[in-house]
Amino acid sequence: MPHFSPVTPDIIQHLIAILGAEAVSTARAEIELHAQDQSHHPAHDAEVVIFPTTAEQIAAVLKLANERCIPVTPWGVGTGLEGNSIPLYGGILLSLERMTRIIEVHADDFQVTVEPGIGHKDLNAALARYGLFFPPDPGANATVGGMLANNAAGIRTVKYGASKDNVLRMQVALADGRLIRVGSRSVKQSSGYDLLHLFVGSEGTLGVITEATLKLVPIAAHMSAIVASFADVEAAVQTVVAVRGSGLDPAALELVDAAHCRMLRETEGVDLPDHPTLFMEFHVALPEALESVIESVKAICEEMGALRIHTATDAAERKRLWHARHASYEIMVRSHPDQKFFINDVAVPISQYPNLISTIERVKAEMGITAYMIGHAGDGNIHVEFPYRSPDDFAKAMEANGRIVQRAIELGGTATGEHGVGIGKAKYLPMEHGEGLDVMRAIKHTLDPNGILNPGKIFLES
Amino acid sequence: MPHFSPVTPDIIQHLIAILGAEAVSTARAEIELHAQDQSHHPAHDAEVVIFPTTAEQIAAVLKLANERCIPVTPWGVGTGLEGNSIPLYGGILLSLERMTRIIEVHADDFQVTVEPGIGHKDLNAALARYGLFFPPDPGANATVGGMLANNAAGIRTVKYGASKDNVLRMQVALADGRLIRVGSRSVKQSSGYDLLHLFVGSEGTLGVITEATLKLVPIAAHMSAIVASFADVEAAVQTVVAVRGSGLDPAALELVDAAHCRMLRETEGVDLPDHPTLFMEFHVALPEALESVIESVKAICEEMGALRIHTATDAAERKRLWHARHASYEIMVRSHPDQKFFINDVAVPISQYPNLISTIERVKAEMGITAYMIGHAGDGNIHVEFPYRSPDDFAKAMEANGRIVQRAIELGGTATGEHGVGIGKAKYLPMEHGEGLDVMRAIKHTLDPNGILNPGKIFLES
Repeated sequence: MPHFSPVTPDIIQHLIAILGAEAVSTARAEIELHAQDQSHHPAHDAEVVIFPTTAEQIAAVLKLANERCIPVTPWGVGTGLEGNSIPLYGGILLSLERMTRIIEVHADDFQVTVEPGIGHKDLNAALARYGLFFPPDPGANATVGGMLANNAAGIRTVKYGASKDNVLRMQVALADGRLIRVGSRSVKQSSGYDLLHLFVGSEGTLGVITEATLKLVPIAAHMSAIVASFADVEAAVQTVVAVRGSGLDPAALELVDAAHCRMLRETEGVDLPDHPTLFMEFHVALPEALESVIESVKAICEEMGALRIHTATDAAERKRLWHARHASYEIMVRSHPDQKFFINDVAVPISQYPNLISTIERVKAEMGITAYMIGHAGDGNIHVEFPYRSPDDFAKAMEANGRIVQRAIELGGTATGEHGVGIGKAKYLPMEHGEGLDVMRAIKHTLDPNGILNPGKIFLES
Repeated sequence: MPHFSPVTPDIIQHLIAILGAEAVSTARAEIELHAQDQSHHPAHDAEVVIFPTTAEQIAAVLKLANERCIPVTPWGVGTGLEGNSIPLYGGILLSLERMTRIIEVHADDFQVTVEPGIGHKDLNAALARYGLFFPPDPGANATVGGMLANNAAGIRTVKYGASKDNVLRMQVALADGRLIRVGSRSVKQSSGYDLLHLFVGSEGTLGVITEATLKLVPIAAHMSAIVASFADVEAAVQTVVAVRGSGLDPAALELVDAAHCRMLRETEGVDLPDHPTLFMEFHVALPEALESVIESVKAICEEMGALRIHTATDAAERKRLWHARHASYEIMVRSHPDQKFFINDVAVPISQYPNLISTIERVKAEMGITAYMIGHAGDGNIHVEFPYRSPDDFAKAMEANGRIVQRAIELGGTATGEHGVGIGKAKYLPMEHGEGLDVMRAIKHTLDPNGILNPGKIFLES
């Protein structure tokens, strides 16, 4: 248990000297706005919320906090799902919400340099006129800084990769107040240790991302959507493997389970059968390729015994087909009034996906609980969504979660595919990483000896 | 300057106890075989060469070496180009040549788990029957372990990424003898610090890779080659940018400069004009797409003022077209008998490529030296090849190299795109990384406090 110092009036004065009075708040409303993310984890109050506008201010705050042993928790927009940005030990809540500038669009390089507080949807809206986009899409309008800190991914990862695959260079403020640059705007670099990827996914425990240069991708000129339903998950997953093996390079390859399809049909009238369904999207540069891709995918689906297949190439029809997948979380929440949701996140090698799914089905049956599955099947990633009302239901969901995580790790997978460790997954890391976790802890101690950076996350003890 | 201990007869006995007598050699022939890579850096003798066959043996050797303060330099097959595997401080040369097994092909996952000593060409030969391949290709039959340690890349990086993008999981032996696993067979992972990419590219200075699970890619069913020549490098590079902006996703996009084209024509009769030439390759899953891709690329090349364009889709014709590029290094060496070559390696953001090239042309002109350029243009990566005979020529090449490296860094690029730091690039890292280099050094000290792992590499002082 770390021994942190409280945020005294003296500290507040120092913060005001660094940031200006308008960027330092102890107002109850601000504290409450930054006490909890979108997860089930309990709220915790910070002692002060600050709104820096420059990297230098962030570095100065960290230097101060490090010298005085005060915890600092970075905050993007609070859309995390594992308590990643909850200020567990109070201290300083460092909001990036005033750092939302696009610093430079390097259009010829397919790159953009941004401040960390910009939402990825806002960024993509601004980039549209260049015909470029930043592909990772976790759903919510998460900030780029938060996405990098958690290595967020989403539905397009199967083609375009996770956040870690779409960043080239960052500026990072270290606990001791140094500002360093990691990575390079050169897409190729073999120049010493890959510090870039050490900070990506470190959830603010090694440093605060103050600037990032992102890789962009040309917006595909032609897209197609294919939705196919199967008798069972095995057939659906074998189709996933076959589609990937064909070299057809899907841009999205999503699984919605039978229970979820039923719920979508019964509550929203979505035209889906009571069967596991794959939602697929393909992006191609040339229109001639589109029909060929659709025909090839249809042939694979038919060979795998698809019960029905819908395809679409025009934008409106594509949107209609994908609506059920895109809105699935909102529809589910709406159809379970008065309930909260706990969302599990695990990933396995694709060959083990059927094993994982059958484990989930078994756990649900044995424990007699309701749960829905939505998965980034192309990546072997699944989310099990547990609705709960009572503490007893929540405890059951937690137990089921534990069994699913353990099974995912046994199958060669991971405790978290894209939500990060935060608070909730810390207890599973020893099982997943063994002595590798000691190496992570040694690096944490090297870069943040006083443990001020986002304490209580990733590691069980801080 | 580190204070290492010599390899005494006592140490030899310990090594024999760990490895068996047949895996420990102090024979002059073995020492000489492992004293120098393919670079210009002077040979250095190790004191003993060992040939472990298991990860546990490697861990035990490191534990011993760490306790006795003896340097250990890992060795793949010696194809490095920056002295990366030269045993600068003597000690133990740890050859991986007896660890060449394919441990498991995970065909449904498009993955393979291998021992580090296998050559990537041998691996791909064995994988052909699965219709899968490991895409990074540095030219020589480098070992997978060496490629990962140096983050090797090559001509297919523009589509498939460098070594770091094609590995999922490794087992690594640490200096203190711990064996850890980093990464995951799950393609998605957000589970703590990315130790995988910390070890990739660390050139054996943080640990020894004892096993790796690689990402594989389906062998493209249909390929096309396009070779186009331009009046000047600007036009060629604008074509590179246009092709990438079109979303056409080239699998290779190489630049050969006018001087090199002339040399290829004059010495080998290769049908190339006296102009900068782009060699391109496209991989597609569907035959219908191939003609469209070729037509689109041709249209772009014509719009950019290409002087001539050759295309090919059948394998024999493709090979013929690409021959000049694939054999360019060998042809160059053959056409400069009695000369050695020093090969520079820098990379910049693609928009700065014309700037970089014109710097190189200026340096050549000002210094009155001969040099050839071959570049992975799609990645902004260039190699300048300097033939030399006398110490004076070599000194000039070194000076030119320094000016080119400095310019690449000024242009937002890197001192090394794919050859690694080794010995030769260490002096440029402070300019490239600033205080980030101190963070690298701190991590090195944390994981290898006695500095036994590949000393003299990456950092100027060990």
